[in-house]
Amino acid sequence: MREAYLVGAAQSDFGSFPDESYRSLFEQAYKSTLASVEKGVAPADVDEAIVGTLGVGGRQIGLPGPAVTEHVGLSGIPCTRVENACAASGYSVRQAVQAVKSGMADVVLAGGVEIMTDLSGDATRWWLGVSGETEWERLSGTTFAGVYAQMASAHMKAFGTTKEHLSHVAVKNHRNGAKNPHAQLRFECSLEDAMNAPTVADPLTLYHCCPTTDGAACALIVSEDVVGEYTDDPIRVAGVGAGSDKVGLFQRETYTGVPASQRAAKQAYEMAGVGPVDIDFAEVHDCFSIAELMAYEDLGFCEPGEAGSYVESGATDYGGDVVVNASGGLKSKGHPIGATGAGQVAEAFTQLSGKAGDRQVEDARWGLTHNVGGSGGAAVVHIFEKEETA
Amino acid sequence: MREAYLVGAAQSDFGSFPDESYRSLFEQAYKSTLASVEKGVAPADVDEAIVGTLGVGGRQIGLPGPAVTEHVGLSGIPCTRVENACAASGYSVRQAVQAVKSGMADVVLAGGVEIMTDLSGDATRWWLGVSGETEWERLSGTTFAGVYAQMASAHMKAFGTTKEHLSHVAVKNHRNGAKNPHAQLRFECSLEDAMNAPTVADPLTLYHCCPTTDGAACALIVSEDVVGEYTDDPIRVAGVGAGSDKVGLFQRETYTGVPASQRAAKQAYEMAGVGPVDIDFAEVHDCFSIAELMAYEDLGFCEPGEAGSYVESGATDYGGDVVVNASGGLKSKGHPIGATGAGQVAEAFTQLSGKAGDRQVEDARWGLTHNVGGSGGAAVVHIFEKEETA
Repeated sequence: MREAYLVGAAQSDFGSFPDESYRSLFEQAYKSTLASVEKGVAPADVDEAIVGTLGVGGRQIGLPGPAVTEHVGLSGIPCTRVENACAASGYSVRQAVQAVKSGMADVVLAGGVEIMTDLSGDATRWWLGVSGETEWERLSGTTFAGVYAQMASAHMKAFGTTKEHLSHVAVKNHRNGAKNPHAQLRFECSLEDAMNAPTVADPLTLYHCCPTTDGAACALIVSEDVVGEYTDDPIRVAGVGAGSDKVGLFQRETYTGVPASQRAAKQAYEMAGVGPVDIDFAEVHDCFSIAELMAYEDLGFCEPGEAGSYVESGATDYGGDVVVNASGGLKSKGHPIGATGAGQVAEAFTQLSGKAGDRQVEDARWGLTHNVGGSGGAAVVHIFEKEETA
Repeated sequence: MREAYLVGAAQSDFGSFPDESYRSLFEQAYKSTLASVEKGVAPADVDEAIVGTLGVGGRQIGLPGPAVTEHVGLSGIPCTRVENACAASGYSVRQAVQAVKSGMADVVLAGGVEIMTDLSGDATRWWLGVSGETEWERLSGTTFAGVYAQMASAHMKAFGTTKEHLSHVAVKNHRNGAKNPHAQLRFECSLEDAMNAPTVADPLTLYHCCPTTDGAACALIVSEDVVGEYTDDPIRVAGVGAGSDKVGLFQRETYTGVPASQRAAKQAYEMAGVGPVDIDFAEVHDCFSIAELMAYEDLGFCEPGEAGSYVESGATDYGGDVVVNASGGLKSKGHPIGATGAGQVAEAFTQLSGKAGDRQVEDARWGLTHNVGGSGGAAVVHIFEKEETA
């Protein structure tokens, strides 16, 4: 297998942008991505593009991939739109890695975009709900927060996880996100804020839920044959893993973990030849606080059932075992569905390039990204390694 | 680059099936695909799945990929949904080839599915229109037939192409489709029928337009390392090409051809090391008769402007240069958007396996499939070779 490298990545600002379109947000992310490449890159170098989005297609616009690439001047090259709900652009990046490893392309742009804040109705029900099971969950009245609330309740019952544990996730991620100039919710919150916020779906309060977000993100994946043209400090895509599962939570054997994440992590660790203990930082899919706790367990950072005490101990904060969601995560940075996976990769690139400023993870060498579709119908994990340079 | 092989492929019946769902149609195609593999295949062998669909996602069901793979018992493996309008599953197959060539998978299921006939309104406007440009074409009143009618008018004006030429396409494809047990419109039509049918969008009559279709199709792509486990008569994926373009016709430099198809064909021929003259049969994207005529030119079967006289001469019929749309094409076999590309590959597999019955192309060795998204915002071409066996 030939090696694939991450030579550039960036996101647009995440937030509510009534004056932007899916095209203009993608353009922001694209231009910032080109600018992030150490030695520069010419648009003509790009052999292929892959664009993740849930809603742009759902809005009765076919071909959203070619629609955004034509806007940035990349028209002509092979361009594919992928959708795996909230994991759309995690899968874009995975497909870009396959394209490079296949030998069919040397330079591939993987990205994602979503506009979510222009709905007058209930975005949780419509946007996130679509990511879960529709026929038996959403159409029978279950909100997407309700699905994750069932997982939180099950985790609490099985392992003694508490609302305070959930709140520690929010506190940490808001503290990190407050330092991220591209984050949507750039303010800190206290444990009391998170505990006492209005309930969205018991036991989840407002601070246990990610916001509704517009945004875009891109990453540039290149082959070993050309990586030297773009950087002298290569970041290798060391591991890639993906897994699927029953789309409906009610059809699964467990409510206290995400088997698709476990499968994806196993594949990615095996391919990279490293384990959870080697990872310096991780961007994990915390659409709801319980999702981050389950991710600790599914990714092997702690044992099953121990995530509550693990976050409380500070193990996932700066100075701990593994810094989780240095970017602020979906909770504070925002969750523009189709852009989230590529946005995680953008943070990994920024950290491994040593350019994360106030939120820099020191001596970061191994970074992991973890992107979940729906309540676990799909998951994808990437492991990036900053190679030692001579 | 390691080689990829096509070891099985099949489609469901194409037609109007009010008692079927997107899941049940996919299951039909999946089961028939497994059954088409010479030495058999166990579902547990499948490493990854890629599912193309336009509308299942558009209908507010996220994760349609995992939703159909869980239904057929493939839950757990990496599964991605791709969408490039009417080229969705042509791109599924392409992505499966990349997955195999990347070394990340040995056995990949590529498929597609669409349910179109349950709309009470104008399917041409809603389903096909979405595949074109939305903001400036569809929402300003242009039907999708209207977009292709503009291309037909331009071709007529530039090259003297006639309504009779367009009608020859319909006559040939209906004659072929009448022999295809899985086709939607299994009846012949005369030149007079095609000429005198009601106008849909001038100059296109009803017989110059494909029907509205429900259906699914799958293909199984495997690596050179395992192909011997599945067949002793390997069919190699010799060439793959793809290209994109401005989504809106009005933004392009030409109305008389599809530059995305030209780009895709060039890539595929170069990779395969063959040219148009080597191709024994082709399944081309004849959503409207003019699209088949442009395909002759874009794929290099004849010179630009000569497609009208080319079809009239019988060059694309049995006994001619290249048999085009032996299956009946989109015109007679039907066009379930997300299933069309994989359906073309299913016909290529059937032909190269020598199992096409009354519509068999004799001594078929090289087959080509050509799938277009929208009015040419995306296109993908595959070239398959039946290898010589000892």
